[in-house]
Parts: sequence; structure tokens; C-alpha cells
Amino acid sequence: MKTYKILFLPHQKEIEVQDKTVLIRAAMEAGVHINASCGGEGVCGKCRVIIEQGQVEGGLSEKLSREDIEKGYRQACQARIVSDLVVRIPVESAIDSTILNLQSAPRKAAGIQEMNFNELKEKGLFVPPVEKRYLEIPEPSAQDNLPDITRLIGFLKLNHDEHRLEVDLSVIRKIPDVLRKNRFKVTATLARPVRKTDGRTRIINIQPGDTTDRNFAIAMDIGTTTIYGQLIDLKSGKVLSQYGDFNGQISYGDDVISRIVYAEKPGGLEILQQVVIGTINKVIQKIIQRAGIDPDEISTITLAGNTTMTQLMLKINPRHIRRSPYVPASTLFPPIKAAELGIELGDHVAALVYPAVSSYVGGDIVAGVMGSGMYRSEVLTLYIDIGTNAEIVIGNRDWLACAACSAGPAFEGGGVQFGMRATRGAIEDFSVDPVTIEPMIITIGNVRPKGICGSGLISMVATLFEMGIINNAGKFNPDLNTSRIRRNDNFYEYVLAWKEETQIDRDVVLTEPDIDNLIRAKGAIYSGCRTLLEEVGLNVADIERIFLAGGFGSYVDLEKAMTIGLLPEIDPDKVIYIGNGSLMGAKMSALTNRIRRDVVEVTKKMTNFELSETPSYMDHYVAALFLPHTDIEQFPKLKARLEGRKRLNKKTVSKN
Amino acid sequence: MKTYKILFLPHQKEIEVQDKTVLIRAAMEAGVHINASCGGEGVCGKCRVIIEQGQVEGGLSEKLSREDIEKGYRQACQARIVSDLVVRIPVESAIDSTILNLQSAPRKAAGIQEMNFNELKEKGLFVPPVEKRYLEIPEPSAQDNLPDITRLIGFLKLNHDEHRLEVDLSVIRKIPDVLRKNRFKVTATLARPVRKTDGRTRIINIQPGDTTDRNFAIAMDIGTTTIYGQLIDLKSGKVLSQYGDFNGQISYGDDVISRIVYAEKPGGLEILQQVVIGTINKVIQKIIQRAGIDPDEISTITLAGNTTMTQLMLKINPRHIRRSPYVPASTLFPPIKAAELGIELGDHVAALVYPAVSSYVGGDIVAGVMGSGMYRSEVLTLYIDIGTNAEIVIGNRDWLACAACSAGPAFEGGGVQFGMRATRGAIEDFSVDPVTIEPMIITIGNVRPKGICGSGLISMVATLFEMGIINNAGKFNPDLNTSRIRRNDNFYEYVLAWKEETQIDRDVVLTEPDIDNLIRAKGAIYSGCRTLLEEVGLNVADIERIFLAGGFGSYVDLEKAMTIGLLPEIDPDKVIYIGNGSLMGAKMSALTNRIRRDVVEVTKKMTNFELSETPSYMDHYVAALFLPHTDIEQFPKLKARLEGRKRLNKKTVSKN
Repeated sequence: MKTYKILFLPHQKEIEVQDKTVLIRAAMEAGVHINASCGGEGVCGKCRVIIEQGQVEGGLSEKLSREDIEKGYRQACQARIVSDLVVRIPVESAIDSTILNLQSAPRKAAGIQEMNFNELKEKGLFVPPVEKRYLEIPEPSAQDNLPDITRLIGFLKLNHDEHRLEVDLSVIRKIPDVLRKNRFKVTATLARPVRKTDGRTRIINIQPGDTTDRNFAIAMDIGTTTIYGQLIDLKSGKVLSQYGDFNGQISYGDDVISRIVYAEKPGGLEILQQVVIGTINKVIQKIIQRAGIDPDEISTITLAGNTTMTQLMLKINPRHIRRSPYVPASTLFPPIKAAELGIELGDHVAALVYPAVSSYVGGDIVAGVMGSGMYRSEVLTLYIDIGTNAEIVIGNRDWLACAACSAGPAFEGGGVQFGMRATRGAIEDFSVDPVTIEPMIITIGNVRPKGICGSGLISMVATLFEMGIINNAGKFNPDLNTSRIRRNDNFYEYVLAWKEETQIDRDVVLTEPDIDNLIRAKGAIYSGCRTLLEEVGLNVADIERIFLAGGFGSYVDLEKAMTIGLLPEIDPDKVIYIGNGSLMGAKMSALTNRIRRDVVEVTKKMTNFELSETPSYMDHYVAALFLPHTDIEQFPKLKARLEGRKRLNKKTVSKN
Repeated sequence: MKTYKILFLPHQKEIEVQDKTVLIRAAMEAGVHINASCGGEGVCGKCRVIIEQGQVEGGLSEKLSREDIEKGYRQACQARIVSDLVVRIPVESAIDSTILNLQSAPRKAAGIQEMNFNELKEKGLFVPPVEKRYLEIPEPSAQDNLPDITRLIGFLKLNHDEHRLEVDLSVIRKIPDVLRKNRFKVTATLARPVRKTDGRTRIINIQPGDTTDRNFAIAMDIGTTTIYGQLIDLKSGKVLSQYGDFNGQISYGDDVISRIVYAEKPGGLEILQQVVIGTINKVIQKIIQRAGIDPDEISTITLAGNTTMTQLMLKINPRHIRRSPYVPASTLFPPIKAAELGIELGDHVAALVYPAVSSYVGGDIVAGVMGSGMYRSEVLTLYIDIGTNAEIVIGNRDWLACAACSAGPAFEGGGVQFGMRATRGAIEDFSVDPVTIEPMIITIGNVRPKGICGSGLISMVATLFEMGIINNAGKFNPDLNTSRIRRNDNFYEYVLAWKEETQIDRDVVLTEPDIDNLIRAKGAIYSGCRTLLEEVGLNVADIERIFLAGGFGSYVDLEKAMTIGLLPEIDPDKVIYIGNGSLMGAKMSALTNRIRRDVVEVTKKMTNFELSETPSYMDHYVAALFLPHTDIEQFPKLKARLEGRKRLNKKTVSKN
């Protein structure tokens, strides 16, 4: 079998592969990320690479212009290696992770969490799931030669009032040496049952000497795109370190659907499971290093993710999640040893995986509902997490309704010609001169623009709409006198940045189809909220509070989100950025059993609506396909502003 | 590094090893068994091999005569390989397993077991630990798209009155495909909690279609020497197949102490664990094959073994078992997945490991107490298992006392010059002509003799004593006119078979030190019984029944065992051969949760006596170092026979 050497630039990574290997797979093996969102089907056209030396077979497609092809561009997922190669990953195909960790410290999240903790503590509902006990056990003698475990349990019963105890095999394996290392002075780690009446306290670890000061937990959010971890001191409740990284599964598809497609291929599920565990281990290593902790000192790990991510992580085939009637294998998961999943933690560490509600309302959302405390509050709250998918939960401590909205990936840059994730070079804010129609753009990292992220897109559409540059159907006014607006085949587009101002040597534009996609996305979410409310006999005006979760939520301009009709009009002070709600819930569960106990009840209480099966949804959706909505009366403040502007425009026109 | 080829004869097995490899280790790797009882320390002298071609370094020892060395005999544990070799394993060093399976069908055991089962069933105490339910579940639809697991649990609740259910991850992994394979017609396997109030029913497996007819369990006895397995039909309670094989650990030492010594070496514990699991898997494969079962159809496995075997199997360091004050790591073991131990059964199979009482009264004895039903009976019973060690339990349903007697390995052929296990060629029965002093010997398999097994030894000593050929101190009468009795340095010996009549080309003899070892062994056991009884205010005459367990128990001649004072004198009808009590108990636990429930209470009830720490024991022991005992009054029937013989002898003498 012939093999070839492939050198990837700018990474300078080299790998040897067999003849006819697909280029994107070689990159994967070399650990070189190439942005690919279609799982290698060749349709997204994002995995563009430049062949600088050597030959490939295939890799041409309609996504590449003649000019591109002459420059050596190929689609990595379609190209087979037939010689030694030097391959360059162009900037727009590489993922830039420099911006990631900014997002792990969301704006107002800490306040909410603090509040919940205090409330639980005041009510005496705060039960640590894992505790340590320092024990000075009498040594055995010829007259008293009980088994080590019997001696330990007896001592805990007699001196620490601990009853109904059981022991892990890993503790039985360690106990003879640990007891005798420090003359029977040891620290036992006790894991509490979620309900006192429902199970036993498990002795999960035993360490020589007094280690009661060192008892740590890990909380993780397993996102489709990113994986965040926090190292938590179980004694103080403080976060000692945190880290986020891209989910290694990105190389196998951008969204959950392409991951499921990949998981259905032979061996695909196993690969995706190993890859996500790989990222989890990387994040764990980082946070452990940063905090200066020994892995053996970790007592528990809590993980939250959407239903697909959870099933992939647990090696459960997600096949039916994407097929009608969208049935997940399970939404409740038994506690499982972290080591059994391949997570590099001690044998004694149980992984608690957050339960889900349905195929598209996952453990990440449940974690947000738990972490934000909305399930214990009287206030009627809309919880909304806009990411690859958009999930909404409406309710309070008495009832909870939830749904996933097929918003499409517009908020994450999908379906938008120059769409991209909220990373360096993405336009995130925008204004326009009402007279010259010239833009002002601000990018993440303040560098030359590469594309448009979700919050930028909202900002643009809201601004252009308020300025009257686009109408309530999202169409450009063709009569404006500017070279920025131009016709391109069947539609108009607005030039945000000229080729020479960009990082990518092409004009960055906003097109009518882009705007249309955004309108569909926001329409799906808004009509989702209306449908849920209507099902319980309420309407949008009854919402008393909005919790905005997800990385997207931290960046979006609230007023503009209301201008385009994404969010109901509400006093902006009543909109609270939750940040990473999934991580917040995971942390809460790591700290108190109360949350672990409540969560099962809460998931049962969360009534899931399949919007596609709810008759009124389609009517609401169609009505929402305008800016901000067919029924402007639902947006009274905006209505007032628009009327004010019309008067102003008329004045300006009459002045001219 | 140089490597050499080693050919083992008569096995015709070849293996390549590195320079200086110890010969016995090469044999192990080649899967060639060499009898070795000292764990490779070079003291037992049993691992004799013949170097037919090539060179070894070392391997000479005082155990080998000059003649042996000239013939090419070496000790395999002391010889290092320095060239290609042809090595022959002589017959006395090889283990002959042809006889093994005879022992797995003990004489009267079935009756006892049957009785217990019927009693439990009559009393309604028979609760199968694993049951199957065939379910025809409605298929999901757009209006009813519950998760697969929720659907399954809901159906079981509604239609089968099953509550408090939990699910294994392995079932979640399988359920989407299994449900859809046969239109939601499936069989669920339910594992019951040992106590209804203490835990949930676990759904451990799901299979397409109706498989309720096929529900099987495995019961195993993990002996130091042999491992027996039975395949049990959980529906009928019948044993479908059984198989026994030598514990692969034999290559690392004959008895528990030499195994512990080996386990303390770096990596030793891991090796011993793998080796015993290897044998377990071999036995499982055989019984599954013989019964024509698919491994996926096995629902549960129960294992019983002594404390050391149990700890080695679970990879728990047994180090402190052999060190005063003889503290085991644990005597209770949590249920553990069989697959986690390396046992080749489905992910859903939990291994139930029998609890022990102490370092030397293990799960095998507890299993015997459970399986024989003695713990539920009013009859005061002596349970005795004579194997590598001797364990005794005395009591009834109100109280149980137990102890291990350091009987030494005499009953298994240890410490006896021509001692061997009860395998082909072992002398198992013996009589002697009172005039000519010529013997009649019967061997297992009726072949030419190689040595003496435990039951043979008892038969010889009892016969020689009754005949007056040895006195009550075990010494030969030197005045008898026979070439069979001859002086050998410091002691007398009796020639059982002349060199040319044997398989081994040497005289097979019974020596005074051999007899002395037997007297010590039986003395330890008898005084153990007396000590236990005395501690509860009873004496030997109060024993109403004897349960005789172990392979040895099946072969021993009861009257002769009483003649030498091994067993108390009792009506032979009240002595019941239990056979493999450990396997019997394992089977009972596989069949009914009642036993699983009771066993924890029973182990707590079993008061363990460390005889070495019990002051009266040494007095009883010294008194027992005669044939049958210092106090012949304890053996009234024997006393009468001896007096009768004396009168007869006097008559004979006076006639002559």
C-alpha cells in the first residue's frame, strides 16, 4: 500500500497516510481543524483548503469559483490524496479559538447563581452530594481482627452517626494499604444518596491522613460547538479554575444533525464518543493544572449537554433523534463511573449526567432551568437559549412548558453568505449613516472583518429596518442612491466592507436571502413563545422576566432583538443574561444534592411541545415572518419609534 | 536480546522465550502445566522436568538425587533457559484432569438441595432474582413521542404492575434498535432487589421478540485447586450442563499462602487475577457450549470461593490475610458487572460474589451453609469442608460458630512423601493381610499407583492402626516379620508398591512422618470442633448430624475417618455428603433472592473463632495427637472393636 506525507500549514503538522485517503480525514488524524459543517457530504463548501504542492483527486465543486480552483482551492472533504502534499488551511476555514474563553464569564450570571445558593442555604436545603470525614480508627489486634471494611463502617456508624452505608469495589481494593500507610488515620469520602429514603450513602474513596480540606468537583457543559469546564471547591463552593475548548466533534459536522449522520456510519458513534471524551479530558487537564489539584482529589463530575451530545457522550446511538417522531433513547441516565466513559478521573468518580426532556430540549436546557432557579420562582419567566438550535422554556414553579424551535443556524452564521461564529473578525455591531448609507462596523477582536456573527446580523437588520433601508419584509429600498446597495441576480445586497478592507480578499455583503433567513429564525422563536403561552391561556404580554442563555445571549443587543421581533417587548431591566446556563446548572448539581433531587421532578413537570405537531404554531409562524411582526401592536414602543422616524424623514425630505 | 525455542513434551507445544527466562514461566506461557506447590520458591521439589535436549542454568537442588540429575531431571522453577530446549514433563509433575469431572456429581448432595428448594417454595420464599417479561408496546407516533426508556417503563408500570424501576446504561444503548427490530415487541429482563424495601428493580436487558423461555444463570465455585461451573435454567431450576477445570493459578503455587506470596510481587496480583478469570472464562465457554446457549442469554452469575480466591478474583490485595492478625480487606462485596472483572458475559450481567466471614472462613463455606440449609434447620449440625484448609461450622438456625483449622495439606497430598491429589493413579483404598502384612491397594482410575491421596492415607492409617501394625502414636511395630516395613534413616516406612509395580519407577511408601502429619491434621480438626462446642457449652456427643463437604468428603470412608479420630463417632446414617457445598450455595443464590437476602444475616451470625487465640484449643489439640485420641472413651465403638481384636490376636498368638 502506498503512503504519502502531508504537511499542513500554517500548523507545520506532518502526517503519513495511505493512498486515496480523504484529505479532511488526514487533517483530523493530524489534529488539524478544518471548519466543516456538513459532516463531509460536500454541500456546505466550508472546508476550503489550498493545495500548495502535490496532487489530489477530486475536491472540485460548484462551491468553488474558477478563480478559486486556479489558486489551488479544493474542498477537503471531497479530495483524495494521491501524492505527497503541502496543504494550507486558509484563515476562513480554520477555527479561531482565541475569543472562546471570554464567553465563559457571562455578564450577570453570577448574581442569579449566588441568589439561588443563598436561598437554598437559608431554607436548609443545601445538602453536599459528597462529603469527607477524617477518622482515627483503632488498629486491629488478635482479639479484634474484623475485616478492614467492617472496621471502617463500624467506626463511621459509632462515631459519625453514619448509617445505611455501602462501599465501592475500588475502596475495598485500596483499603488495606491506605489504612496501614498512616496507622489507621484516614479520610473517607462519602457520596450521599439523592433522596435519603432512596438508597445508601456510598463510601467512594479512602485516603491516608486528613484530606478533608481538599474535596473538589468538576462541572461541564458539553456543547455542540464548545465544551466548558469548571473546577469547584466543594468546601467553599468557589470556582477555582475554568476553561473552554471547541468540541473535537466539530471536524465531523457543525450541528447535531450532521453529527447524527456521522454517528450512523459504521464505527461513527464510537469515533464521536472518543472525540468528545478527548475534549472533555483536555478541558479537565487544563482546569486541574490551573488549580493545582491532583486528579485523585476530584470526588464528582456533573455534565450537561443537549440530547444528542449526551447520547453521543454515553455512546447511545442518536439515530432516531433526527427521524420523525423524534424519539430519544432515554432522557434519564443512570449515574455511571466517569472512568467507564473514558474520562480520566479516579475509579471512585461517578459522572452525573443531566436528564433531558425530549430529543430537542436537552440536559443543557434543564440545567439552565435548575441553575437559574426559575423552577422555584413565582415569576413567570421566559428562558431562551439561542445556539445551534433555539430552545425556549416558559413557566414558573407551578408549571413549565418547553419547545425547541427549528430556528435554523442563522444566529450562528449558518445560511448566511458571510455568516460565521462569534469569533475574531466577525462583525458584531453595526450602524449606518441615514444620508450616505455608509456603514460603521465593529468586529470581535477589532480586526478587519471576515464575516457576520449572529449578534451582528441582528444589529444590521434592526438598524437597516429602523432606518427604512429595508422594509418590513426585509427587502432593500432599491431607490436609495448608494453603491453599497447593488443587485446580484435575483436579489439586492448591501456591501458591508469592500474586498480590500477585509481579511478574506472578497467583498463582505449582507443579502436579502440572509435577511430572510434571519426573519425565519426569529419568527420561529417568537411564534414558539406565543404558541406555548397560548396553550396555557396566556399571551406574550404576561411574561414578567426573560432569562437569556447561551454565548449568543451574552452578545445580543436587547433593544435590537426586540426591534426585529426576536424577543417580546419588555423592560430591558427584566431581561437577565444567564450566560452558560448549562454550566451553571452543572455547577449547582455538583454543589448540592437538592438540585439533583429536584431535577427529576422538574424534567417530569416540563411539558414538551412538538411545535410541528401543534396546530396553532404554523399560523403564529407565518404572522411572525415580518419585521417585527404582522401585528405591530405587539411592539408598542417600536411602533412609536417608527412613527416618530417617519415624521422625521418626512421633515428631512421636505427640507431637502 | 537472544531468544530460544522451547519444545514441551509430551504436549508438543512450542514457545519462543527470551534468554534467561525461568523454565517454569516459559511452561506457563506455553499453557503447559507443571505441578508446583511452593510458588516457585524451589522448596517443594515437585516441578521436576527432564531436559532432553539443550542447556539450562541452575535447576539443581537437594530434592534431586545424583541419579535424577544424570537422567536430566531439573527443578523447573530454578532453571534458567540459555539455549533451545526440548523439555519433557514427567508424569508425576503433570496434572491429570481426566478424573476431575467425576467429582462434580457428589453422592447425596442433590437430595439436600432439592429439600431446601421445596421448603422455600412451600413457604413462598422463592423469589427469582432475575425474571423476563414479554411486552407488546404501542409504537410511538407524532402525538406520542416519549423517549424509548420512558415508554418501556410506563408500559411495565401500567400492564405488569412493575414499580420503582431503574435502567442500566447498556439497555439505553440497545433499546432504540431492539424496539424497532420487531415492531416494539420485546422481552425485558428484570433484576429484583434483594430486599423489596431496599432498592429498585433494574431493567438489565432487552431483546427483540419473546425470549421468556430462555433465561439462564451461571453458578461457580472458585476453588484454590479447581473451578467448577454449572449452567442453570432459571425457569425450571435445572442444571443444564456443568464443567470443572484446574484453577490456572496452580502454576503460581498450590495453596492460598503461596498465591498470596505471589500476589505481593510487583504485578503479581494482576497476573493472578487474569489467570483465574481465564479459567472462569474457559469453564463458562464449556458449559455454554455444552448446553447450546448464547452468552447473551445468561442473566446472572454467582461465584463462591474462599477469602483469598475471592480477593484475587476481585483484584483486592490479599497481603494481610496471611499476616497476624489476619485481617481481610472485606468480607462483603458489592455486586459488580461481570464484564468489569474480565468475565466474558454480556454487559448486563452482574456478578454476585458470596460474602465471607473471616480470612480463613470464606464465601465457599458460607455458600455451603446456605446451600445445605443448615442455617434454617433445628438440627445441631457439624459442617466440615476438608480441602487445602479445613473449615468447620457448628450450629443450627439459632446460632453458628465457625473456625478454620490449620490442618496442613496432608489431606490433599501435601507433607506426605508420595502425597498427591485425588487424581488418576492415587491410592484411594487399602487393606492389609494381618498375617503376611501384604497390602491390597486400589487406585483412582484403577491404574498402576503413583502416590497416595487423602482418602487413601486415612484408609491406610486406620487399617494399619486397627490391625496393630502401627500403635496409637502412629509408629510401626518393628518386630513384624515383613520386608514391607523397613527402616529409613530415622524412621520406619511401609512399602505400598514396589518400584516395578508403579508408574513412577520408584517404591511408593508410607512413612512415619507421613502418619505423623495425618495425625496432626486430624487432630487440628477434631480439636477445632471440640473447642467450638465447648465455647457454646456443648460437647462432641451433642452433634446430631455431619455435613461433609468438598471433593475429599465425597471419597473418604466414614468409619475409617472415625477410627483415626478425624470425625466424632456418630451413626454413619447421620453423616451426609454435601459434595461441592460452595457450588451448591452458588446455585441456590442464582435461583432465589431469598438466599441472597438471608446470606448477609447469616454471615453476621457466624461467630468466627481464631483457634490460635482461643486458650483451650492447644490443650484439645495436644490431646488429639493420638489414634484416635488420648481419651478413647470419646470413641466407644472403636474401643469395643479394638478390645475385640486384642482378644482375637491373643487367641491367634496362642494358637500359633
